[in-house]
Amino acid sequence: MVQATPFLLVLSLALVAPSFSSRKCVLTGKWINDLGSNMTIGPMNEKGDFFGNYTTTVTVNKTETRTSPMLGSQHLTKEKSQPTFGFTVHWNFTDSVTVFTGQCFVDELGNEVLKTMWLLRLPENNINDDWKATMVGTNVFTRLHSQK
Amino acid sequence: MVQATPFLLVLSLALVAPSFSSRKCVLTGKWINDLGSNMTIGPMNEKGDFFGNYTTTVTVNKTETRTSPMLGSQHLTKEKSQPTFGFTVHWNFTDSVTVFTGQCFVDELGNEVLKTMWLLRLPENNINDDWKATMVGTNVFTRLHSQK
Amino acid sequence: MVQATPFLLVLSLALVAPSFSSRKCVLTGKWINDLGSNMTIGPMNEKGDFFGNYTTTVTVNKTETRTSPMLGSQHLTKEKSQPTFGFTVHWNFTDSVTVFTGQCFVDELGNEVLKTMWLLRLPENNINDDWKATMVGTNVFTRLHSQK
Amino acid sequence: MVQATPFLLVLSLALVAPSFSSRKCVLTGKWINDLGSNMTIGPMNEKGDFFGNYTTTVTVNKTETRTSPMLGSQHLTKEKSQPTFGFTVHWNFTDSVTVFTGQCFVDELGNEVLKTMWLLRLPENNINDDWKATMVGTNVFTRLHSQK
Repeated sequence: MVQATPFLLVLSLALVAPSFSSRKCVLTGKWINDLGSNMTIGPMNEKGDFFGNYTTTVTVNKTETRTSPMLGSQHLTKEKSQPTFGFTVHWNFTDSVTVFTGQCFVDELGNEVLKTMWLLRLPENNINDDWKATMVGTNVFTRLHSQK
Repeated sequence: MVQATPFLLVLSLALVAPSFSSRKCVLTGKWINDLGSNMTIGPMNEKGDFFGNYTTTVTVNKTETRTSPMLGSQHLTKEKSQPTFGFTVHWNFTDSVTVFTGQCFVDELGNEVLKTMWLLRLPENNINDDWKATMVGTNVFTRLHSQK
Repeated sequence: MVQATPFLLVLSLALVAPSFSSRKCVLTGKWINDLGSNMTIGPMNEKGDFFGNYTTTVTVNKTETRTSPMLGSQHLTKEKSQPTFGFTVHWNFTDSVTVFTGQCFVDELGNEVLKTMWLLRLPENNINDDWKATMVGTNVFTRLHSQK
Repeated sequence: MVQATPFLLVLSLALVAPSFSSRKCVLTGKWINDLGSNMTIGPMNEKGDFFGNYTTTVTVNKTETRTSPMLGSQHLTKEKSQPTFGFTVHWNFTDSVTVFTGQCFVDELGNEVLKTMWLLRLPENNINDDWKATMVGTNVFTRLHSQK
């Protein structure tokens, strides 16, 4: 039995490794990012559209945070195993909006990861202050609960 | 009659001018931007969500362009006359996605203008190339047809 | 004399038109942008580095504005007539920094224009607030005084 | 001796901990980022300006990479222990330019870290293509060699 282990290890690697490249990265489910914020993405419809909700742990001003709705779209995974996507978070405790865009990757370990960049839009009373209304940043999301 | 004109002009200005500040900027309708791309935004639902389509005149690679679907959300205008918004364009001729965010302003002349910034996400085969996948820019949209 | 006009017009167009494409866009000089801020860029050294100063008309917080130093670099114009460039503005009335990057274009009318994008970095006391420290935007600069 | 250890540990923590907050984050030295690129920043002058060089491991097109010069400026650390900064990299193997801006933080472990965002500007032949010339991203730098 002990002697069989290396062989079985090689065999299992051979079986697992191809599945990484062919594995589809799926947006639906629960995710957490590097700042501790989390989101739940619902099922895609036939066009790639989805709805979900986003719970942030960080805000520009120290306001109470609540779960906010989001909606977006991804490229369908029948062709692309690592789809690009975008979504809009409609904050319900502030008049700001955040849009995220990114790609769902399967990393070397076979884990799904969402690499995103975002723009946070603050409301301005005057169009002349529009220049200072947009913040930019990145977030990396991983599965909140392993749901393989 | 002729002598009454200046008076009526002043009166009409007095009636019109206040409506600029109280006028709501409404996303629904047809818009064109500074690059000649245009979009049509449908009606908002009770949460501020909307669907529409986007026809770009410019692409990163010289591909045929077609009208692509978009969906997004705005803050409701009962409280805010100049709402912030965000939306996702799901390009149907490429595996890229663009997210826009911005604010609908009423300018000094009473015209609605959408001041936006966007992120364009290109697909990458490898997570190690993720760093070079995001482009950034601005667009200003005005009404394609005057629909006051 | 009148009959000669069309010929002279064609001749002058033939003489002028090539100068647009061959004309070099030069950063050195005084510029003003779409927000009314202006800057003066000094001469390039042999590597393309330059120093200058920047006077902003807009600030995130309503502080007194003063002229701030800047330094940057451009690609040399012997090869490129429309060089890309970048520079850093070290604000001397705040602990923020802005970096600009863009390209010096000669437009259809033969006028030089600087198309830029910028990142404005605000200081944060805590690394956990780093995510909200960066604003993004665009600016277009034209010659403040015609210095052809 | 063994019994003294817990006391000494507490004592040393008490001595070390305050030094984190008062410790200045210094840009001068060698840094490596999350993509494996590294840079060397020279000494600041009295205004906060500095020169250095940057060696990237990644490029948009697969070209040979070489070390490129950079120059920038930071806020002086006599007032700020965690200064903001910006710098321009003048790539010498391409006509592109990258500007970085960020802040030098001392993290919970007392290590210096540079949190940055950047804009990469690609050259375009025509001003009408300017919209697609700017990429955006983030980089985190740590000391390449511990030089405390």
